[in-house]
Amino acid sequence: MSKIITVLTDFGMVDSYVGVLKGVMLGINPDIIFVDLTHSIPHGDIKRAAFCLFTAYRYFPKETIHLVVVDPGVGTTRKPLIVKTKDYCFVGPDNGVFSWIYAHEDFKVYEIKNVSPLACLPTGKISTTFHGRDIFAPTAARLSLGLRVTQLGKPLKRGISFNPPMPEVADTTIKGEVIDIDNFGNLITNISQELFKSKILPGVALCQRRMRLRSKPWAENPRFTIKIKNHPIHEIQTAYRGKSLIAIFGSSGLLEISLPGHSGAQFLNAKRGTKVDVYITQGFTKLRKH
Amino acid sequence: MSKIITVLTDFGMVDSYVGVLKGVMLGINPDIIFVDLTHSIPHGDIKRAAFCLFTAYRYFPKETIHLVVVDPGVGTTRKPLIVKTKDYCFVGPDNGVFSWIYAHEDFKVYEIKNVSPLACLPTGKISTTFHGRDIFAPTAARLSLGLRVTQLGKPLKRGISFNPPMPEVADTTIKGEVIDIDNFGNLITNISQELFKSKILPGVALCQRRMRLRSKPWAENPRFTIKIKNHPIHEIQTAYRGKSLIAIFGSSGLLEISLPGHSGAQFLNAKRGTKVDVYITQGFTKLRKH
Amino acid sequence: MSKIITVLTDFGMVDSYVGVLKGVMLGINPDIIFVDLTHSIPHGDIKRAAFCLFTAYRYFPKETIHLVVVDPGVGTTRKPLIVKTKDYCFVGPDNGVFSWIYAHEDFKVYEIKNVSPLACLPTGKISTTFHGRDIFAPTAARLSLGLRVTQLGKPLKRGISFNPPMPEVADTTIKGEVIDIDNFGNLITNISQELFKSKILPGVALCQRRMRLRSKPWAENPRFTIKIKNHPIHEIQTAYRGKSLIAIFGSSGLLEISLPGHSGAQFLNAKRGTKVDVYITQGFTKLRKH
Repeated sequence: MSKIITVLTDFGMVDSYVGVLKGVMLGINPDIIFVDLTHSIPHGDIKRAAFCLFTAYRYFPKETIHLVVVDPGVGTTRKPLIVKTKDYCFVGPDNGVFSWIYAHEDFKVYEIKNVSPLACLPTGKISTTFHGRDIFAPTAARLSLGLRVTQLGKPLKRGISFNPPMPEVADTTIKGEVIDIDNFGNLITNISQELFKSKILPGVALCQRRMRLRSKPWAENPRFTIKIKNHPIHEIQTAYRGKSLIAIFGSSGLLEISLPGHSGAQFLNAKRGTKVDVYITQGFTKLRKH
Repeated sequence: MSKIITVLTDFGMVDSYVGVLKGVMLGINPDIIFVDLTHSIPHGDIKRAAFCLFTAYRYFPKETIHLVVVDPGVGTTRKPLIVKTKDYCFVGPDNGVFSWIYAHEDFKVYEIKNVSPLACLPTGKISTTFHGRDIFAPTAARLSLGLRVTQLGKPLKRGISFNPPMPEVADTTIKGEVIDIDNFGNLITNISQELFKSKILPGVALCQRRMRLRSKPWAENPRFTIKIKNHPIHEIQTAYRGKSLIAIFGSSGLLEISLPGHSGAQFLNAKRGTKVDVYITQGFTKLRKH
Repeated sequence: MSKIITVLTDFGMVDSYVGVLKGVMLGINPDIIFVDLTHSIPHGDIKRAAFCLFTAYRYFPKETIHLVVVDPGVGTTRKPLIVKTKDYCFVGPDNGVFSWIYAHEDFKVYEIKNVSPLACLPTGKISTTFHGRDIFAPTAARLSLGLRVTQLGKPLKRGISFNPPMPEVADTTIKGEVIDIDNFGNLITNISQELFKSKILPGVALCQRRMRLRSKPWAENPRFTIKIKNHPIHEIQTAYRGKSLIAIFGSSGLLEISLPGHSGAQFLNAKRGTKVDVYITQGFTKLRKH
């Protein structure tokens, strides 16, 4: 198991709670390398945490341990989990925070045996309000020492999932939605580049680019229209530039709606769940055939 | 001495001052492992810094060095200090920032000999405005190399303390106050679980829990009343849940007043110093006796 | 080459983008030690990023690699760069972010050969929107492994510079400006202590201090006047104290205008570019001679 542990919480940066997590883990394994994903998840916002984890986890070396403490149900009956995929280990509460992982990876779920001295603080004390410190951090640290998942947890049938929203796909439409808004105000949708491309004739992207170079005939002859809150967009850009709303495939390979230099979210008054539809008007394979 | 140095400042995250501290320390000892406690202490708020340090320091491995640079008096005659306790070393200004440590640990105080080349930058230059960089960071880094405290400082009788507020305890009352407000808006009081328990009959907590399960008779027959700004609370919860003001023993073992999912501080317009009183109406040992 | 990589971005702390950069680098070299300079550069504010880098870079051990990802032109034709100075390596976009380095160091500029598999992700994929992850981070990580600059880039004549503003100096005046505002609201000018001292008679600083001790005769008989937005300041302080606007040489050796305990920037409604003039009324060498 790797010595790298990423840390994702909703603790904010104002208190010393994140430092305490790390202190506890260094007490168990002084060789851990920490990487903060973010600690600015809005309090208890499980969906934001799940998406932040999803966009980051695969960029880490194999065997990295991802510790997630967004845990509004601390002290209730929600279970503490270890989730094991081919390349990674995830530690956190069973509240849906691993939903995107479940949707994209083969995985096994384990309930942390927190009665075991292995899965809690060396003092053995477990508070009712800070399982991050008392259960999750010690478990992650012990995994980094090389302990096996089965030493720390018992197999569980499944974890709780909120089932990430998937786009509805028909012959000439893709009906998606905003699933996250980043710090720049970019609206990230659940429409992937692969899905989009599969609906548009091969070669269109290139063609589109060339057409843009000569007096933008594209706008008069669009092959698709992306609509968000009644704003139509007819092109896919490759850089965050221009002065109006653009569509672009962002760093996660998902369609983004962006207002370069400004917050697209604020401009559109859009939020998580806002509908984003793609209408394919030409270039759709079936249409071409007749 | 450990290679772990925690860093607590009021520098904020907007400038590169924290990075500079770490650069200076890595120049002296490239093996240091840094853990940030927080850099979001309001500018010069010594009491907040002292409490943040207090809630975190004991969760780190023995021999950890805790560096505190909340130093509104930089450039004046305030002394630079090393404070040594059984398990830890603290480095920072003599302005009360170690008050909670003094109140809870056996300690020795040393004034950093900043004329010594050991306790300043390799260049030997000391500015009047950034002793964090020029004195405190180099001192912490040299401690992490294994230098003895007496090589870096000379014994001092005592450090400045603002004497953390202690609750007033009488037969049937505990008169405490809010000593900190965390990022969630939880109001942390100076009333410890130990003190509270010592005033309530043993077994009450358990009994209380059972009673809550059958139609909450507790509220009609309270054994204690916690009052903050005229809001009465009759129960101790074990999780941040519900829709009204709750009382709970937080992760530091101190009584907290919290509004789950919201800021209790904002709701009550409470601040550091707001009174929190406990009135024991039944279950108090003496009362039971007659 | 050192294993220390500093990271400076405008990504904010809300998303996991910074974590992704670090994950990518640890995948290439698991021994890297990261130091965050700041991630709170206002989006695309190249001048702020350039100054933050300038105030921090020299405090790191020799051979440190400084990674800067403030890159509003990502996906356009702006070049990806490595800048090599005697002691350091800088990696980032060719947009002026290294202007202060160019102005203060001997340097060589290289364009990163991002077609080379050495200078991109192990997958070989390069997005158009996140060169921080796809080009800059892998390049920095490979430099930390000991690869030579010439393996990763080809020499370039020069990089883009916005030419940092220099003060206009005459016999009895220094006309400077605010070049940065820090988190405390201190106004940092481009007037260095060296320049200021060279215009004032040697020994004045000491003399000034002594005079302050006996009933402040200095104000009646000033040797210089610093003016910002019509506010005159006649003294240089050595600590952030007092209740009015002060002048002080800050930690970077530059003249700062500050309102202790408050934001001088807000009080004066000053911003980057606000004029700060020094008028030498006595003590100027030439004047003394006749």
